Amino acid sequence: MNIDGVAYRSVWVDQDDGWSVRILDQTRLPWTVEILRLTHEDEVAHAIRSMQVRGAPLIGAVAAYGLALALRRDASDAALERVAAMLGDTRPTAVNLRWALDRMLKALRPVAAAARAEAAYEAAGAIAEDDVETCRSIGQHGLPLIQAIAARKPGKPVNILTHCNTGWIATVDYGTALSVIYQAHDAGIPVHVWVDETRPRNQGSALTAWELGRHGVPHTVIADNAGGHLMQHGEVDIVLVGTDRVTRQGDVANKIGTYLKALAAWDNDVPFWVALPHSTLDMRVRDGLREIPIEERAADEVLNTTGRLPSGEVVTVRTAAPGSAGANPAFDVTPARLVSGLITERGRCDASEAGLLGLYPEFAALAAE
Amino acid sequence: MNIDGVAYRSVWVDQDDGWSVRILDQTRLPWTVEILRLTHEDEVAHAIRSMQVRGAPLIGAVAAYGLALALRRDASDAALERVAAMLGDTRPTAVNLRWALDRMLKALRPVAAAARAEAAYEAAGAIAEDDVETCRSIGQHGLPLIQAIAARKPGKPVNILTHCNTGWIATVDYGTALSVIYQAHDAGIPVHVWVDETRPRNQGSALTAWELGRHGVPHTVIADNAGGHLMQHGEVDIVLVGTDRVTRQGDVANKIGTYLKALAAWDNDVPFWVALPHSTLDMRVRDGLREIPIEERAADEVLNTTGRLPSGEVVTVRTAAPGSAGANPAFDVTPARLVSGLITERGRCDASEAGLLGLYPEFAALAAE
Repeated sequence: MNIDGVAYRSVWVDQDDGWSVRILDQTRLPWTVEILRLTHEDEVAHAIRSMQVRGAPLIGAVAAYGLALALRRDASDAALERVAAMLGDTRPTAVNLRWALDRMLKALRPVAAAARAEAAYEAAGAIAEDDVETCRSIGQHGLPLIQAIAARKPGKPVNILTHCNTGWIATVDYGTALSVIYQAHDAGIPVHVWVDETRPRNQGSALTAWELGRHGVPHTVIADNAGGHLMQHGEVDIVLVGTDRVTRQGDVANKIGTYLKALAAWDNDVPFWVALPHSTLDMRVRDGLREIPIEERAADEVLNTTGRLPSGEVVTVRTAAPGSAGANPAFDVTPARLVSGLITERGRCDASEAGLLGLYPEFAALAAE
Repeated sequence: MNIDGVAYRSVWVDQDDGWSVRILDQTRLPWTVEILRLTHEDEVAHAIRSMQVRGAPLIGAVAAYGLALALRRDASDAALERVAAMLGDTRPTAVNLRWALDRMLKALRPVAAAARAEAAYEAAGAIAEDDVETCRSIGQHGLPLIQAIAARKPGKPVNILTHCNTGWIATVDYGTALSVIYQAHDAGIPVHVWVDETRPRNQGSALTAWELGRHGVPHTVIADNAGGHLMQHGEVDIVLVGTDRVTRQGDVANKIGTYLKALAAWDNDVPFWVALPHSTLDMRVRDGLREIPIEERAADEVLNTTGRLPSGEVVTVRTAAPGSAGANPAFDVTPARLVSGLITERGRCDASEAGLLGLYPEFAALAAE
């Protein structure tokens, strides 16, 4: 997608040197568009852990490139396994990370060490390209949901509530839930997005609002507390979110607070849809509440907030009372019963094993394991 | 309650001059304990609007003193009615404000102008004293709920989730929901409080955490998004909140986001109790969702955050993307069906007309109007 008319992706190989990995530093957004150059797998691990890159699909693609960077220096079997394990441990909740690394390992284990680095760049590039096409398709398959609502309220905008950031910067391009919104907007459907702030890291007010603003999509930032009230008063036509892991029975792990919006949608008969690429599916896991590990991040994220002073300086301020402790679970699990449906690159389905296997019959064997 | 061992109330008449009104400037908390001196009803209106004083019961008491300040200069019938109307318009959602002003008008209309100012100080003082006793009683009537949970998990803390600030600084003393917690803590019951940050104004992380910390009550600040996840995992034994208005059928208007926590409590069989003084009841209103006006506050509150720099300076930073708009509904309504019960100064009851009239039979005539 574009920033001020210039096309960007969220990760790419540097065109001058042909090997270093370029990312947007998302911790600097929305204040500064800063491109980082990553040259070592440890820098990649740091970028993922510190959320310079974030968003389940993007993390997978960047980790794949991290493996390629490592193999340039040491392409041994031992290095391959060690670096894949190291990168796989950077964040625990999103399954795309392991999916991407597993895909890399499967492609690279049979390759001779001398050819591994080159093969790794090819495999990582394929993951990135696949992600772009996948996200474009997700948007296409979500579009009829928006069209149907628009048809019921001619001349009025479709009000969509979203949580966290599921845009092009959470993926390699397009986004997941936001891909639906971008494609609806580009198709001329009047849309208006309620953007949940998404404390503690403000991915909504800082990243989603930035993306939508740069693309010209009408939107309004709200406190995470406000969505239920808006739904009670008919101000939300549909909720569209992304996910970090969907289980075999359709449970959805996503940014903390998603579950609360799903409850409100359910209580007010507002459709609640989850957009995802197949790499977010974890068919080995059934019960999301019991089986998905939830990342506990630093308490400082809850006790502090980052923003910009009138002078332009970006600073972090303490917002909580001095001396108070904080807790910071980063994700929650929305049970399948609260999910209207899933939007994937192959189409829409129920949030259930039957729904998923209808779209992904090749996962049946895996599901039976 | 105490700040560093010194007993305070949230509003009082200056003991030196005998007439000016003293308040804690709550917009300066938790960073600075600053006492303001109010000498004019316009300062009182500003203090309420700007949330130097906030919390439904405290607003009522401070408005009552504001009327007394006005009557010192002009005690005419016209001034009495005009200033009461002006103060009544400062905030629309809490009913305690109108209740306090109505009580003042009823007491002062029959009084000769020459005696009105003195009578107003007396009446305002009575409102403040009644509030202290009311809040103490609310705590006593809530205590058995905490004792019963403690009895079921000996040696382990009772985990209480709360939203916004319902402490002594939201009232004249003790608080409403926090009165229950203070009295449980003081009675030796091990309690631990999950403090919702309460964006956009952070009354939880800034005010509730400050109060609890100063009183020595164990607590942990969480993002507003986290409560549902904690309830799913058994980490919350009870939710205790306050309210700005309770209708005849038991609907509860409270700080934006309360409804989302009520949904999560209901979905996880966690008791959800609402603490209130009788002055928060609005028996003229039945359907809270349709009939309670919801204050829409400035978007800047959502787009910005206030906090303290490492240097000690308190600043406001922009947290949302430049150019994005915000919306800021300040309250929502939790339907009675999601409320386990109400805790009042007369005891506990169902969130229903029958429950309320059982405790407040004198409101039957009003309810029938």
